[in-house]
Amino acid sequence: MDLRALHRVSAVEAARGIREGVFTSLELVQACLARVREVDGAVQAWAFLDAEHALDQARAADELRMSGQPVGALHGVPVGIKDIIDTADMPTENGSVLHAGRTPSRDASVVSLLRAAGAVIMGKTVTTEFATRTPGKTRNPHDPAHTPGGSSSGSAAAVAASMVPLALGSQTTGSTIRPASYCGVYGLKPTHGLIPRHGMFRLSRTLDHVGLFARTIEDIALLLEELAAHDERDPDSRPRARTPYRAVAAGEPPLAPMFAFVKSSLWDRVDADAREAFAELVADLGDRVEEVELVTPTDEVLAWQRAIGGAEIAINLGREWDKGRDKLSPALRARIEHGREVRAMDYLRALGRIPELNLSLTEMFEQRYDAILTPAAFGTAPKGLESTGDPAFCALWTLCGVPALSVPLMQGANGLPLGVQLVGARHRDGQLLRTACWLVAHLSSDR
Amino acid sequence: MDLRALHRVSAVEAARGIREGVFTSLELVQACLARVREVDGAVQAWAFLDAEHALDQARAADELRMSGQPVGALHGVPVGIKDIIDTADMPTENGSVLHAGRTPSRDASVVSLLRAAGAVIMGKTVTTEFATRTPGKTRNPHDPAHTPGGSSSGSAAAVAASMVPLALGSQTTGSTIRPASYCGVYGLKPTHGLIPRHGMFRLSRTLDHVGLFARTIEDIALLLEELAAHDERDPDSRPRARTPYRAVAAGEPPLAPMFAFVKSSLWDRVDADAREAFAELVADLGDRVEEVELVTPTDEVLAWQRAIGGAEIAINLGREWDKGRDKLSPALRARIEHGREVRAMDYLRALGRIPELNLSLTEMFEQRYDAILTPAAFGTAPKGLESTGDPAFCALWTLCGVPALSVPLMQGANGLPLGVQLVGARHRDGQLLRTACWLVAHLSSDR
Repeated sequence: MDLRALHRVSAVEAARGIREGVFTSLELVQACLARVREVDGAVQAWAFLDAEHALDQARAADELRMSGQPVGALHGVPVGIKDIIDTADMPTENGSVLHAGRTPSRDASVVSLLRAAGAVIMGKTVTTEFATRTPGKTRNPHDPAHTPGGSSSGSAAAVAASMVPLALGSQTTGSTIRPASYCGVYGLKPTHGLIPRHGMFRLSRTLDHVGLFARTIEDIALLLEELAAHDERDPDSRPRARTPYRAVAAGEPPLAPMFAFVKSSLWDRVDADAREAFAELVADLGDRVEEVELVTPTDEVLAWQRAIGGAEIAINLGREWDKGRDKLSPALRARIEHGREVRAMDYLRALGRIPELNLSLTEMFEQRYDAILTPAAFGTAPKGLESTGDPAFCALWTLCGVPALSVPLMQGANGLPLGVQLVGARHRDGQLLRTACWLVAHLSSDR
Repeated sequence: MDLRALHRVSAVEAARGIREGVFTSLELVQACLARVREVDGAVQAWAFLDAEHALDQARAADELRMSGQPVGALHGVPVGIKDIIDTADMPTENGSVLHAGRTPSRDASVVSLLRAAGAVIMGKTVTTEFATRTPGKTRNPHDPAHTPGGSSSGSAAAVAASMVPLALGSQTTGSTIRPASYCGVYGLKPTHGLIPRHGMFRLSRTLDHVGLFARTIEDIALLLEELAAHDERDPDSRPRARTPYRAVAAGEPPLAPMFAFVKSSLWDRVDADAREAFAELVADLGDRVEEVELVTPTDEVLAWQRAIGGAEIAINLGREWDKGRDKLSPALRARIEHGREVRAMDYLRALGRIPELNLSLTEMFEQRYDAILTPAAFGTAPKGLESTGDPAFCALWTLCGVPALSVPLMQGANGLPLGVQLVGARHRDGQLLRTACWLVAHLSSDR
């Protein structure tokens, strides 16, 4: 094996290679660090990366394996962590000068789970300001003149540029699906509450999700398997039976899946080349796809999402507002100002829509469709770094807490990647991954 | 046994008597109906009572028992149901002309649980308007010139007047504890979420609790044992191991319990005779009680409670407001008007206090005290029927969702009953009942 290309291996391959002694964690992490040195000058995916600390973790992982002790499913595999997720051994600055130098004393739940699985915590990836819209320094690895998307900019870019096989992000509107689409990697926003959020900067209890990035579906399933856990410190986490996501994802669907193609009222604003790409995809799928119109107008959904997100962001950024609002970006200040004026009634009314929306989605999934197929974004990554793009295509699924996956299936006219968003039923995350596998296999056999 | 006095038996005695064939459910229900005819002209506890329907249920219960089939823990025992709790076979009018003649198609969770335990659903008890403050017709059975308290007026009065051994109420501020104190019966507001609320009129998801009334602690424990259950249709219900509340309540405490006497800043407004009664009680308890001051000012707690309750009541009574606000009482209209203007920020900030308050209570309970001892109300039932009294002494415990029990231990200078409120740790409802048993035994051996 050419160790210089080791940074390109998937997490599944990496874990297997290390477990079987084909290569060491140290060699893998060295290869990833070499890749960082090679490409990160242009990409700038990292908010914090201490090469020595990563190498120390890799050495410790290798020693543990050599001692014959049992190793976890991610033993020796490096993972990038969005810089809104607390790490006890690295700063966590939440993308704001207000939190510059902040060093939490404890790991977030997900970081503890990763360490328990043997992972090497590679470093902290760039986030937008408090995981909202004001961009960080990261650029799209496919073309540095374009945004990588946000808010999980660094995580998407680091995985896309093969600096790490896996990274964690988050999604409160479209912060995982959109950058995954723009950067051409898989991005999963799992069912709300499935992965505990304790120790992650809270913007919105109702809307926040941990997001996962990888270059293969199998890797997403592996990561999900390690992170789906109950943690009482997340009020929306519940005890559940452990699901073997890798096995479920790898299984054969009992029938060829049926897709509901949802264009929504946003469709007219989708770029022409993206519309064409979707038309081809739908043609490819033939009778396995039907165009479906959702009952609820997208404008209303966006208004509910704004009321909930606005009010919750205003309260969760209350201290920053009180003590340092002059150091917030004008965009975030405006958002908080709006959120502070939301009436509890409108907030509660919007919250009350979530179970209703879920009921109509549940019906769709139970009666006919395995997954909803819809754009991940309005097109490929927009040019320029002043915006991270528009997350509107993600708002409904985030609000409903249903699992959504960006699948890097297509390309725009500019050659940049274009994701297809697949949405599944609540707590059927494994089945969604299985449906995605079927789709990828179907299209590659077809073309 | 004198069947004419059968209405005075406790639920535990009733269930045993029926199970062992000492008397029948029919005889018991007949005795209770006779008692209703005797006293309810003055008390007016019932919003709906169809004697024939109650007798039919009793006959069916007796037939089932005679057939040798297994019977439930409440087999043949009549229970009164507050008229905000849905019953498929009786109207449920929620104390408002707006819902006059409303006949739900399904039983509330608690009614289903009662039927499964074999109970006879005796009838519907009077509630205030939508379980808020505007009184119904019920009078205090100890003196009809006085309020029975509210909002569970009919349930407290019916149990106090021995028309039924058991009744269900609810509590959103002090709607179980206060009428229990005024009417001289036991009233339990269990831990939030412990008893499912599906099918009960929702005023406030955060504050609503099902409340229990009985004339003995043993009966409260029996009723709780049948009603503590998981129901996914109540978003705050969780699966839990079944607790044998009767056995726990009847157990000997490992040590004589320690009480924290909490006067709070409301103390100055407590009636002089009630203050004296508490001074005697505290003297009786000697070194088993210590006066404790809570960190959080009561005014703040009441403001949080108002923000949460106000906003949630405004949304939950939204349809009534939109379609018939002229048929709401001026007091309720004013409360909704206030609630409609609460800002989401203030609502969310108040919600955020609940875990903090609970943390400080948990410390108290873990470190030193078995129960908090505090007034259930400012004194005995106020004279007049235009008000149901002030629930302020209940607000904190309702907000925190901790179990609270009114124990009918004292009397005012006017001879009316005066409850002692005991408050326990979350999900230690059984231990709270055990502590109450100890207190009652201690005082009766002492006096």
